[in-house]
Amino acid sequence: MPKEGITPRAQDYSQWYLDIVRNADLADYAEVVRGCIVFKPTGYALWEAMQRGLDDRIKATGHTNAYFPLLIPKSFIMKEAEHVEGFAPELFEVTQIGTDKLAEPLVIRPTSETIIGYFYAKWIRSYRDLPLLINQWANVMRAEMRTRPFLRTAEFLWQEGHTVHVDEADAERETLMILHDVYADFVEKEMAVPVIKGLKTEKEKFPGALRSYCIEAMMQDGRALQAATSHNLGQNFARAFNITYTDQTNSVQTAWTTSWGISTRLIGALIMSHSDDEGLVVPPRLAPTQVVMVPIYKNDAERSAVMGAVERITAPWKGRLRFKIDDRDNLTPGFKYNEWEMKGVPVRVEVGPKDVEKGSVAVARRDMPGKAGKSFVPQAGLTEYLEELLATIQQNLYDRALQFRNDHTADVSNYDELKAQIERGFARAYWAGTTEDEKRIQDETRATIRCIPLEQPEAGGICVYTGKPATQLVIFGRSY
Amino acid sequence: MPKEGITPRAQDYSQWYLDIVRNADLADYAEVVRGCIVFKPTGYALWEAMQRGLDDRIKATGHTNAYFPLLIPKSFIMKEAEHVEGFAPELFEVTQIGTDKLAEPLVIRPTSETIIGYFYAKWIRSYRDLPLLINQWANVMRAEMRTRPFLRTAEFLWQEGHTVHVDEADAERETLMILHDVYADFVEKEMAVPVIKGLKTEKEKFPGALRSYCIEAMMQDGRALQAATSHNLGQNFARAFNITYTDQTNSVQTAWTTSWGISTRLIGALIMSHSDDEGLVVPPRLAPTQVVMVPIYKNDAERSAVMGAVERITAPWKGRLRFKIDDRDNLTPGFKYNEWEMKGVPVRVEVGPKDVEKGSVAVARRDMPGKAGKSFVPQAGLTEYLEELLATIQQNLYDRALQFRNDHTADVSNYDELKAQIERGFARAYWAGTTEDEKRIQDETRATIRCIPLEQPEAGGICVYTGKPATQLVIFGRSY
Repeated sequence: MPKEGITPRAQDYSQWYLDIVRNADLADYAEVVRGCIVFKPTGYALWEAMQRGLDDRIKATGHTNAYFPLLIPKSFIMKEAEHVEGFAPELFEVTQIGTDKLAEPLVIRPTSETIIGYFYAKWIRSYRDLPLLINQWANVMRAEMRTRPFLRTAEFLWQEGHTVHVDEADAERETLMILHDVYADFVEKEMAVPVIKGLKTEKEKFPGALRSYCIEAMMQDGRALQAATSHNLGQNFARAFNITYTDQTNSVQTAWTTSWGISTRLIGALIMSHSDDEGLVVPPRLAPTQVVMVPIYKNDAERSAVMGAVERITAPWKGRLRFKIDDRDNLTPGFKYNEWEMKGVPVRVEVGPKDVEKGSVAVARRDMPGKAGKSFVPQAGLTEYLEELLATIQQNLYDRALQFRNDHTADVSNYDELKAQIERGFARAYWAGTTEDEKRIQDETRATIRCIPLEQPEAGGICVYTGKPATQLVIFGRSY
Repeated sequence: MPKEGITPRAQDYSQWYLDIVRNADLADYAEVVRGCIVFKPTGYALWEAMQRGLDDRIKATGHTNAYFPLLIPKSFIMKEAEHVEGFAPELFEVTQIGTDKLAEPLVIRPTSETIIGYFYAKWIRSYRDLPLLINQWANVMRAEMRTRPFLRTAEFLWQEGHTVHVDEADAERETLMILHDVYADFVEKEMAVPVIKGLKTEKEKFPGALRSYCIEAMMQDGRALQAATSHNLGQNFARAFNITYTDQTNSVQTAWTTSWGISTRLIGALIMSHSDDEGLVVPPRLAPTQVVMVPIYKNDAERSAVMGAVERITAPWKGRLRFKIDDRDNLTPGFKYNEWEMKGVPVRVEVGPKDVEKGSVAVARRDMPGKAGKSFVPQAGLTEYLEELLATIQQNLYDRALQFRNDHTADVSNYDELKAQIERGFARAYWAGTTEDEKRIQDETRATIRCIPLEQPEAGGICVYTGKPATQLVIFGRSY
């Protein structure tokens, strides 16, 4: 039964998304600052959980955090040819400080390859300084015509890693390691969102990169969402900013750089992967609150019996579960159930006077709304039961999302099949076309090549568009 | 013996500070972006440790984090009279997005009372929505003529709390609770820096506040550093932004707000409280690395014996100490000692072939350089020994700083004594002067009233400047 205030997905997926954001109290529109949003506490708590999971992995793989200036001289952006073309139309320009007009505008970072490249050139002297492995957590701004909370906002929050290496092989190893061990590992294990790891085509790669890798996820409407990118920048930025080092033979070499980022878009990916017509669904490993305890009572006598039991039951949860006791008076249990369902808490435990007598509790799973997900469980051994249940829910969400993606992915062998399939989800096809062909397909179907998956079949096939022999299998889809 | 590259404090305190920042590799000047610095990994790691300690306390006292836009319509800043005057000369203005010229400039937040006030006015309806307790971690920008890394930079990082209350008493309780339980508690316990809690005078308060409270610390040159501020904003911002609520009788009331912040200036405070002519000194509770283990060997046979011992000795440290094993080849032990002393690691443990034979290690305390802080300790029970030693060092740093402050604080009873004492440190004086008197004293002596301490003597006295009877004791000092 869909909730009041939430448009069912089947009726209007786009409106459903906005309804979830509003009802779960995740964000507010900042209509006074073009294209911006406020990350409200419930939404920001999701980002904090993501930051922890990502930051742990970034540090475990040998990187340290630093912080570079928000503002970049505009001329810096102009130094790398593709980079200018990609970012110049989106820049926020600072032209005045106090009453001083600036001779050269400063721009708010749309990404930091240029300003960081400038410093790396100063800092790096010899091969002994490499690899240089630094990450930054920061806000960035890019002009956006149409705002969609988390998915498309002028200001967003992200981490951007920037590394420097002695040669192409080391840069490539870093780029792929980040894709596998940081991004895919985090998104699949913590967010329970299955991803396809792949290479971007020339048309879709980062402005200034040699090669861009990505992880792509499928949302519940069959559309793709690029969850993260990792770029081997080759020597493009090193040349533009003169990042060189002396090698073992004392000769000067141009370095190789990488950059990689993941942003608050992930909150959008999370919503659109798991949530339902009842509200937000948050996977247990990521959830700021994993279990909510709702005591049920009608009078003071019942209240004291129930609250005593609640205290006893939840005592062993400390340090093992992230939980909240919702002991707000003047709100009905039904109101509370509704609110916590809306906010996506994975498990709800209810304790009333009869449960106290029987030594049991009622447990409701957020991933299975209604009767199907509700059961009565003995108080004895409840902590272990809940720990297992949370692991089960985490796995169930992942399995469900993977099943959905498989059900909405199909091999296609000609353009008509491609056009039909992208209405449903991902189309897997052999490809030997040009960037021009890709643009034509996008104009005609609104679909793009999401990626060239790293896992490729041994045999080749026939290009879905040109009919030429092809060795690459690609994924087509419409994207966010 | 002072280190190469570090000017002794006694010779030039200001240059000593810059030498520490450079040699400990804490920051770099961003000369291409006026007034900005790069927070290098070693410096940023200190900020991350500070963030953890502060964020824990901010959450434990009932606040949640959120994130508001970086940019603010310039007209917002103009809505609160004192606020305009305080911040208008320091604003970074965005006047263009892509190729669009903006009709009204946006400014980079110098602080967020105005933009957050705008949203609070939208969100708050009834007394049931209060208190609203939100914190934000963010970058802010204010034009600065003279840059001093960490202490005075155009862009800095901070947290800013913004809360809304039903009445003055609740706002005042919040303002003081933050001062005591978050700021003073963190700075004294984690940073080992003693502080004086006090009220700012009208002249020194935050532009737009009703009352500003602060914690003031004394640096090693006797000057004051304001480590944090907590403001009761009264109804000034609530009136400017129309933050109202309906009370229990259904009548509309203007709310009361507070704001409070602590910034990357703290890194400067940390450096100038504890460091010495050998380099940075970081208190153990804050230190990203608490113990560094330096193995000593001359050949492969020694190396294998020593590294075996190192592995055995450090195994029980995991999860109990934050430590690093410096097993870099091609660097002498002396070079390593120097580097870790420069970077302020609280304890160094050395293990050589003779130590392996004897079942002992050498332990060196960073807070007591040279022979005085070095001892030979049995390997058995070493983990517990180090845990106790770290606690001892933490306490020693605090005690030393407190002793220094006491030695450099004196009561003064006339203007000549005041002028003499502020050359040495803090002058404690009775005060009944005006804001004009305060300005004259500042012009003549470069000292200001740092605060009116919360702890006041029962009896009054005679004003140090006007000779009038006075009830308030204040602290004068020169400040950063």
